[in-house]
Amino acid sequence: MRIHLVNPNTTVSMTDKIAAAARAAARPGTEIVARTSTMGPASIEGHYDDALALPGLLAAIAEAERAGDQPTDAHVIACFDDTGLEAARTLARAPVIGIGEAGFHLASLIAHRFAVVTTLSRSIPVIEANLMRYGLDRRCCAVRASEVAVLELEDPASGARGRIAAEIARTVAKDGAEAVVLGCAGMADLARALTAEHGVPVIDGVASAVALAEALVGTGLATSKRGAYAPPRPKVYTGLLADFAPKDTA
Amino acid sequence: MRIHLVNPNTTVSMTDKIAAAARAAARPGTEIVARTSTMGPASIEGHYDDALALPGLLAAIAEAERAGDQPTDAHVIACFDDTGLEAARTLARAPVIGIGEAGFHLASLIAHRFAVVTTLSRSIPVIEANLMRYGLDRRCCAVRASEVAVLELEDPASGARGRIAAEIARTVAKDGAEAVVLGCAGMADLARALTAEHGVPVIDGVASAVALAEALVGTGLATSKRGAYAPPRPKVYTGLLADFAPKDTA
Amino acid sequence: MRIHLVNPNTTVSMTDKIAAAARAAARPGTEIVARTSTMGPASIEGHYDDALALPGLLAAIAEAERAGDQPTDAHVIACFDDTGLEAARTLARAPVIGIGEAGFHLASLIAHRFAVVTTLSRSIPVIEANLMRYGLDRRCCAVRASEVAVLELEDPASGARGRIAAEIARTVAKDGAEAVVLGCAGMADLARALTAEHGVPVIDGVASAVALAEALVGTGLATSKRGAYAPPRPKVYTGLLADFAPKDTA
Amino acid sequence: MRIHLVNPNTTVSMTDKIAAAARAAARPGTEIVARTSTMGPASIEGHYDDALALPGLLAAIAEAERAGDQPTDAHVIACFDDTGLEAARTLARAPVIGIGEAGFHLASLIAHRFAVVTTLSRSIPVIEANLMRYGLDRRCCAVRASEVAVLELEDPASGARGRIAAEIARTVAKDGAEAVVLGCAGMADLARALTAEHGVPVIDGVASAVALAEALVGTGLATSKRGAYAPPRPKVYTGLLADFAPKDTA
Amino acid sequence: MRIHLVNPNTTVSMTDKIAAAARAAARPGTEIVARTSTMGPASIEGHYDDALALPGLLAAIAEAERAGDQPTDAHVIACFDDTGLEAARTLARAPVIGIGEAGFHLASLIAHRFAVVTTLSRSIPVIEANLMRYGLDRRCCAVRASEVAVLELEDPASGARGRIAAEIARTVAKDGAEAVVLGCAGMADLARALTAEHGVPVIDGVASAVALAEALVGTGLATSKRGAYAPPRPKVYTGLLADFAPKDTA
Amino acid sequence: MRIHLVNPNTTVSMTDKIAAAARAAARPGTEIVARTSTMGPASIEGHYDDALALPGLLAAIAEAERAGDQPTDAHVIACFDDTGLEAARTLARAPVIGIGEAGFHLASLIAHRFAVVTTLSRSIPVIEANLMRYGLDRRCCAVRASEVAVLELEDPASGARGRIAAEIARTVAKDGAEAVVLGCAGMADLARALTAEHGVPVIDGVASAVALAEALVGTGLATSKRGAYAPPRPKVYTGLLADFAPKDTA
Repeated sequence: MRIHLVNPNTTVSMTDKIAAAARAAARPGTEIVARTSTMGPASIEGHYDDALALPGLLAAIAEAERAGDQPTDAHVIACFDDTGLEAARTLARAPVIGIGEAGFHLASLIAHRFAVVTTLSRSIPVIEANLMRYGLDRRCCAVRASEVAVLELEDPASGARGRIAAEIARTVAKDGAEAVVLGCAGMADLARALTAEHGVPVIDGVASAVALAEALVGTGLATSKRGAYAPPRPKVYTGLLADFAPKDTA
Repeated sequence: MRIHLVNPNTTVSMTDKIAAAARAAARPGTEIVARTSTMGPASIEGHYDDALALPGLLAAIAEAERAGDQPTDAHVIACFDDTGLEAARTLARAPVIGIGEAGFHLASLIAHRFAVVTTLSRSIPVIEANLMRYGLDRRCCAVRASEVAVLELEDPASGARGRIAAEIARTVAKDGAEAVVLGCAGMADLARALTAEHGVPVIDGVASAVALAEALVGTGLATSKRGAYAPPRPKVYTGLLADFAPKDTA
Repeated sequence: MRIHLVNPNTTVSMTDKIAAAARAAARPGTEIVARTSTMGPASIEGHYDDALALPGLLAAIAEAERAGDQPTDAHVIACFDDTGLEAARTLARAPVIGIGEAGFHLASLIAHRFAVVTTLSRSIPVIEANLMRYGLDRRCCAVRASEVAVLELEDPASGARGRIAAEIARTVAKDGAEAVVLGCAGMADLARALTAEHGVPVIDGVASAVALAEALVGTGLATSKRGAYAPPRPKVYTGLLADFAPKDTA
Repeated sequence: MRIHLVNPNTTVSMTDKIAAAARAAARPGTEIVARTSTMGPASIEGHYDDALALPGLLAAIAEAERAGDQPTDAHVIACFDDTGLEAARTLARAPVIGIGEAGFHLASLIAHRFAVVTTLSRSIPVIEANLMRYGLDRRCCAVRASEVAVLELEDPASGARGRIAAEIARTVAKDGAEAVVLGCAGMADLARALTAEHGVPVIDGVASAVALAEALVGTGLATSKRGAYAPPRPKVYTGLLADFAPKDTA
Repeated sequence: MRIHLVNPNTTVSMTDKIAAAARAAARPGTEIVARTSTMGPASIEGHYDDALALPGLLAAIAEAERAGDQPTDAHVIACFDDTGLEAARTLARAPVIGIGEAGFHLASLIAHRFAVVTTLSRSIPVIEANLMRYGLDRRCCAVRASEVAVLELEDPASGARGRIAAEIARTVAKDGAEAVVLGCAGMADLARALTAEHGVPVIDGVASAVALAEALVGTGLATSKRGAYAPPRPKVYTGLLADFAPKDTA
Repeated sequence: MRIHLVNPNTTVSMTDKIAAAARAAARPGTEIVARTSTMGPASIEGHYDDALALPGLLAAIAEAERAGDQPTDAHVIACFDDTGLEAARTLARAPVIGIGEAGFHLASLIAHRFAVVTTLSRSIPVIEANLMRYGLDRRCCAVRASEVAVLELEDPASGARGRIAAEIARTVAKDGAEAVVLGCAGMADLARALTAEHGVPVIDGVASAVALAEALVGTGLATSKRGAYAPPRPKVYTGLLADFAPKDTA
């Protein structure tokens, strides 16, 4: 099967790292097609970046659905805020998984209570709102920030890993976390080693999302087109975004 | 004071109606500066339109903050989905009010339980998610759709008013609604007459938002810049949206 | 417009301070008519005082509705416990706002998460119950007591201000509060200076309630008389409280 | 043991009926001392009556605590709204039980989901707010009104019983209620026969409260005087209610 | 009346201690028939022990219902996890009370907020899930573990009492607990002395359950047989547990 | 990989159907080892059957973990009540998935709101309690019973399919369900055809659980052994269940 993985920020080196993590997690026979957004922020840190990443994300989803000789079987949105998840579901024929929700769902299958360790504290409200929307806030004992900026994760000299590890240790000791979800796509390469170090499962959302995409495709499940995720109504779009106008597909 | 009212869809006739409602509600001395988004959907119906309305909305907010000789004292987002509310709060110096939240807050000051009557059923999940995020789902006994499309509200021959009235009657009788919030900016002109007809307060979000904007400005309250609504971090934006890149204002 | 502000405790010096704060917040053209309860406790600290403040409060509301040549347009209950808010709404023709709810609603328009700093810890359960009833507990990250008694706020030598400031600093640092609501009418004069000192909005419920009362009156909204706030049924009242008997107004 | 049962409305015939139900439920050796409030409303229907019943209720509690040669072991507040429950707990040395909470607690021990059938629909919000405060809203599948006024329960010709029975039948059939709590002290005499008729437990709050009062006294448990129910602080009370001023008992 | 108290673990010395506590709490005329499970774990610590204690518990309930010349009026399950409570309710004709729920319900009648102090931290999730199921999580401010193993409670030299007392002191100081429920049947003998030491009610679930059983029997209330607790459907059971097969009793 | 699928009821024909569904859903390379419980109820309908199915379930889990030359990679509990899920997680080294939770999690990835259509109404409270425990009650708009007994699903002449289809139609029309989870392992063969008929995804928990088990194994995630799912403590077990005693594995 073919999974389309879209990095909704425009940093190609980060796409490369995420794609590598996705390929490492994918089963044989799954092809990962990675795509970097071509418009919007270089990293997504808070509500403003989230908002401006949406057109790039949706363009990537649309392109993947249109593209080529082999159809896309599922989309993975590789930003822990699950940026544009619901809009993407209305647009795409194939199922769409966000790496945030993926981490939360798998965590709740292996732990009674999990914590999230993310980048900057401004992302905490975004993540908490998502958890509440999904219902899984009840399973999450803490969302903590390591105060590592997203692009510091690309820089080995930043000390990012140490700050993340310290926050994991804290949430296990103080919040009773039984598992920890890493709150940024750029942390995908750290999960395995941190699991070994801390004695609790440390979960990467990218691998989780690939696995859940495979699960949906394998069971033949696709987004319901009734209700919240009904296809966009055809209408006129204007200006810079005129090309995003939904067409009448009836 | 000067209130900037932005219609995040691109339909000018709708902006005109909304601006008229805002001016009718504003107190003497309040100037309403209405602006229509210049990019994105002609009407906002569901998650996809919401997502693509964001750049136009944020551009309008930014322009109003930059513009002119007299500063903007508050912004009102004139879409009942409160499209882009949180991103706008990180961007703007002045406080920002969404007409959805405005209607919910005022409703909860005059009724123990209120209902919402909106346009299409695809908007129900968006509104319900907002209510939950604000905490006011506990005060809302029903979100009902009249199945009137947004632009039908601009067409007197559409029968829209009758379908909305019927849904109000239903929610009062069946859900025990003590007040009803009209779930679309385009219904702003109907509130007064429907209140008289149905014997319960029927609330227009546009007037509510203007009044709450005046309330915040009058009491000197502005968005907290600590936490969720901290200013966007300066960074590179790419492509079509490069101009939206946050600048370093330190 | 004419706003009736009732202090449900019997301490006149406190009414004076509250009325001054209300007048400072009111817009030109709003007249504040302040009234001190003539029966009940000198300060309201916990459930017992709350209960015994009710007749005095309701008498004041009734008198304001009856009184004079110019009608009352709205009532403000100037106790942070929102003492008697719901009973007052059944009694009054004009809308009624409590300063507690007013502070919570405005706080939730300018901050993702707010805290409350109140007087004695015995008031915490009252405030928490109100927050839950309004639905806004989900937006409140902490209710903290400064252990300042209400009447100490009238005594500059009490050190009250310092203890309140210390608790604000604590909730910003430890609870992640993005804004702070002052939990007593008697703190109304402190909000502006504390905002400047702490770098987050510090919100006074009195000013908030005046602003919300103006907002309701300005938009023509009044308490729904269907359901929870239907007028009291005419019936016999006995003894000391015989005069409170609702009359048949049909 | 001696249980003080206070009817917070001033209708003596209703006290007599309630006292009879209490005595029928009490075990041998339990003395029921019934007292009718001497000030306030003849029946309690909605927020306004609730508020004005408080002084009479608290006076009765205080009198019972002071009175006589044999101490009061527990108080029962015989109004389904649990009028003044929390204020009474701060005042009384002995534990205090409301008949509403008593019915809810026992219902939740014998049924997964219970319903409430009360008098007028204006009482529904009061009862729902209580259920939420107690936490037991999650166990309650419906609060329904029979539209029987409280004093109609004193009049055999009113048809009250039939309307209550019809509402019980409805909640069992439509809401999946496994047990039904009768939502008014004045329905105490109906529980046994309605249980037999409807095939589900129909619960009277008066008997429930007597049993819970016996349970607390028997196990030596009394109201915690730390936190929410700490004794009222000594202070000046003014006017009609001067005599209610808490004394310094230190 | 006759109350059947079943210890679902197989440790007879613990049954003896529990039975003594039950008898001390019971009123004159109540006979306590104590029974120790004859199959399963010697103590119940976590989900696995809970699961394997069920057949022994249900066998004991069935035997008590069948047994003898005098009928059983109520069952008490003497494990704080309320092991098998719901299955027992479907099986038994008489009402069934768990000591966990009993402690929670009585605590919520005498305190606004209570805490639980239990044995090992692995029991915290079990207790928290029960509180949520009952609805009383909203009233509970903390569930804390003393890290005392159940059978250490049988050993005076274990230092168990000191560790429990230390945790009670902590929850009163840090969590604002107004009352404390002891989270293990084996702590039944400590409640009275700990209440005196800590100045807040310390509640034993065994005494609480006996009192609630007496309350239900006294008011004639029994488990609803409609819905969740309908009698088991007759069917074939196989193997080791064949004798547990429900019979057709129609 | 090898997935152990255990049917916790003792009906072999049902295991065969479930195993076929599991094999149809599994990817190439996944081996399904199906096992029927050897003790307990022939079908699981309500709390009593749930309780008595536990030893058989846990014995099967233990046997699979011990057995053979190739290790078990994951366990699936093939009862929609997720019978014994938490106890199994403490016992097993490999991850454990219940088919109920599996259906809920996948449903919430493809629909904003899903419904459950189960067998008998006595199972509704069990399912609702599970949804609340998992947090996913917020995503579920209705749990409905078709009043089909579990073993009727094995009988083509029972009309079971028609009654299930009717209930699906009802929940789509009345509750706004965007997807439907089939609430019994015995319905596994119906999902595909019902999806085609009703125009919304109809989800089988068995296929969902296999897919989620593959997802966990593929990403290397296993149950956290810290907290709720820590291994059972070694101790003496007595009587019929003596062999279930946890051993000291340190």
